[in-house]
Amino acid sequence: MPAPTGEHSVVRWHPPAYDIRVEKIPVPQIEHPDDAIVKVKLAGLCGSDLHVYRGTEGLTEPSVCGHEFIGEVVALGESFHSDATGRPHLYSTLKVGDKVVSPFTVSCGECHFCRVGFTCRCIESRLFGTPHTPGGQAQYVRVPRAGGTLYNLQGISATPVASNQETKDTIGKLEDSSLLLLCDILPTGVFAAFQALNHPKTLPMMTSRSYPQSSGFAIPEGAVLAPLQPEDKGLTIAIVGLGPVGVCACIAILDMLYAKDIDFRIIAIDPTEARRKKVEAIYAKVSQAQSPARKGRLEVSDINASKDIVSAWTNRIGCNAVLEVVGNNSALSLAYELVRPFGCITSVGVHAEPPVPFSGRELYDKNVSFDFGRCPVRAMFPLALDLLLRRQDIFGQVGGEVSLVEKVVGFDVAAQTYDDFDKGRCGKVLFDPWR
Amino acid sequence: MPAPTGEHSVVRWHPPAYDIRVEKIPVPQIEHPDDAIVKVKLAGLCGSDLHVYRGTEGLTEPSVCGHEFIGEVVALGESFHSDATGRPHLYSTLKVGDKVVSPFTVSCGECHFCRVGFTCRCIESRLFGTPHTPGGQAQYVRVPRAGGTLYNLQGISATPVASNQETKDTIGKLEDSSLLLLCDILPTGVFAAFQALNHPKTLPMMTSRSYPQSSGFAIPEGAVLAPLQPEDKGLTIAIVGLGPVGVCACIAILDMLYAKDIDFRIIAIDPTEARRKKVEAIYAKVSQAQSPARKGRLEVSDINASKDIVSAWTNRIGCNAVLEVVGNNSALSLAYELVRPFGCITSVGVHAEPPVPFSGRELYDKNVSFDFGRCPVRAMFPLALDLLLRRQDIFGQVGGEVSLVEKVVGFDVAAQTYDDFDKGRCGKVLFDPWR
Repeated sequence: MPAPTGEHSVVRWHPPAYDIRVEKIPVPQIEHPDDAIVKVKLAGLCGSDLHVYRGTEGLTEPSVCGHEFIGEVVALGESFHSDATGRPHLYSTLKVGDKVVSPFTVSCGECHFCRVGFTCRCIESRLFGTPHTPGGQAQYVRVPRAGGTLYNLQGISATPVASNQETKDTIGKLEDSSLLLLCDILPTGVFAAFQALNHPKTLPMMTSRSYPQSSGFAIPEGAVLAPLQPEDKGLTIAIVGLGPVGVCACIAILDMLYAKDIDFRIIAIDPTEARRKKVEAIYAKVSQAQSPARKGRLEVSDINASKDIVSAWTNRIGCNAVLEVVGNNSALSLAYELVRPFGCITSVGVHAEPPVPFSGRELYDKNVSFDFGRCPVRAMFPLALDLLLRRQDIFGQVGGEVSLVEKVVGFDVAAQTYDDFDKGRCGKVLFDPWR
Repeated sequence: MPAPTGEHSVVRWHPPAYDIRVEKIPVPQIEHPDDAIVKVKLAGLCGSDLHVYRGTEGLTEPSVCGHEFIGEVVALGESFHSDATGRPHLYSTLKVGDKVVSPFTVSCGECHFCRVGFTCRCIESRLFGTPHTPGGQAQYVRVPRAGGTLYNLQGISATPVASNQETKDTIGKLEDSSLLLLCDILPTGVFAAFQALNHPKTLPMMTSRSYPQSSGFAIPEGAVLAPLQPEDKGLTIAIVGLGPVGVCACIAILDMLYAKDIDFRIIAIDPTEARRKKVEAIYAKVSQAQSPARKGRLEVSDINASKDIVSAWTNRIGCNAVLEVVGNNSALSLAYELVRPFGCITSVGVHAEPPVPFSGRELYDKNVSFDFGRCPVRAMFPLALDLLLRRQDIFGQVGGEVSLVEKVVGFDVAAQTYDDFDKGRCGKVLFDPWR
């Protein structure tokens, strides 16, 4: 297949704010040997696109929007050849025609941060949808450091849940609208859940061993205080914010808690009733295969009622973990109010410039732990793909009661769609650049 | 031995500030069946006593000072008897005459927080040295919830490093000035080090498995990026603040890194030259038994030079972990500057009312993890005692080049000692109430 030339359609934002235009610009070309050109099948509109849309990022140049895209490789730079040994394996294996999904940031796959799995802080990290890294709401997109950045949906050899051939077949049958969720929102939800359940301060409730023995240290017998009681087992967890990432976090944490057979109470909090109803419908579906003897329940709540519910559930001591999936100070303050002493707050919301709303004394007095920041999507892909495959009853849907994706539209309605999304008049929308 | 009556000498603080008096007041008596009365052998003066001393805690009543004490049980409430089954074992085993050490806070040993090891956030937690819980700078002290709070130095049955009899003999030979370190500063230093080395974000550098596999998850082979390189192994760590707790944190983290055979570079930071010199002397002693092939080094630094050193050591990316052992916003800001993306900051400093000096964006952009708060001393006792026993060459000293304790004095110089300590004219001082 020859590399495309000529012009293509893109959704482009213009400064200072709220100005979305569909334009024809030259098709991107290979600029560096590590580049790939991807023909975009679907591109997502994400809540964090609104930071650029509203003009709050301070950008002064137009930029092609979008950091979520799935597509097909149509051109590869010279770095891609059969003996690219010592480099990330995609440099040797990726072929024109392969179906690929991209994290929302570029990662080289070769620096210290990439090697250890913190791919979103790659030393060459670039966010798609910004002036120097045109985004995926386009017919074609250039992917820098493509051998480190992309995930080849053809090339994966196994997942924890299926043998090679089964998995390949299953992935081959998945809708693009489902695979698109791997770009950002599903791994970010998985990351939020993963951080909460792998924190040393939640381990005692999951292992029935007290701290610090819970981290694998041998402690002499006489040093142990009272043995753990049945009520010490299990976790009370709050999820603050039920946008698409919050919904993914709900599904991910339910899945992990069921897999580990941990008792739980989850409160899923959002001021919007439609979002709460979706989470209720999803919970009904996710919990339906569980035995009736299984202890665990999820309830939805608005913000005000959430404090009383958590207080009643926990005899006023609060949640073991709070997943903050909003990205503002109100959400952080609520997380602090809901968390118990020695609890942990996992914050994957994209925060802005205001100082965080805590005094040092407040944090000391509650022994709070925080994990802030962006999901290393490339590193979390396998866990997210595993969940995506097993929960096609949710992630495979478009526009239904439990679906994360509300609809797929063409670029012709891009400006209106941004406006609707900004004003909360629609949920997650995907663009088909060829429609 | 009959329970003491009459009056005893105490060091008592009077509001509003800087007013320390040695006074005679009635000897404390059993007030609740769970109480013990301890005859104090030695009591420590701790940096956090200065919060009360300076009047910044807002106390309006006089209070007997001190939250570090070691002594001998002289009276026990009715809860202590041979068939106190179902309660913490000390209610059945503690005897008048036993040598005990106390954490700086009361912990019942029976609530959820105590059972899971978060003893400093016991629902009945009380800080010694405050108006309602008279402290240990006294000839006698009443210990509430004594069966949960105290640690019986006679009663322990084993430690990870020695068989029962050996351990008992060793503990019997230890100086009280050494055991006194168990009340607060040594466990707090161990806790700071423990949190940093047990954080999921430091595990990749310790296990040579990338995140999230480093937390024990199986990931399909094709999903792994470039393999970890030798330079990804090992940790760069900063310790901010070299007061007594900071020194304990240095020793603890060196001990853990040697035990786990992890390469390291540690920068130990303090503006005071005398403190830096002590840490250098301690490092020389701790490292001397290590083989010359061992990779690892500790350097001391003042605040300004520390940023350049870390930058040079890490090719500008920063530390994997920062231990903040000061308790003010300058120290937190320095910790943030020194930490790398996906690094963790462990803060055991006692913080005050100002808002912490971070914007949400700063925390998001570095994927920072924080662990704030007070050490659960009672739960950390066994790890701290193990270290204390093995490093008597340091912890067993008083007044030497490597000692944490500068001197032992009588109550007659209490007021002067507080003034000297407050003004930085002396290091850690212990009181012998009977001298």
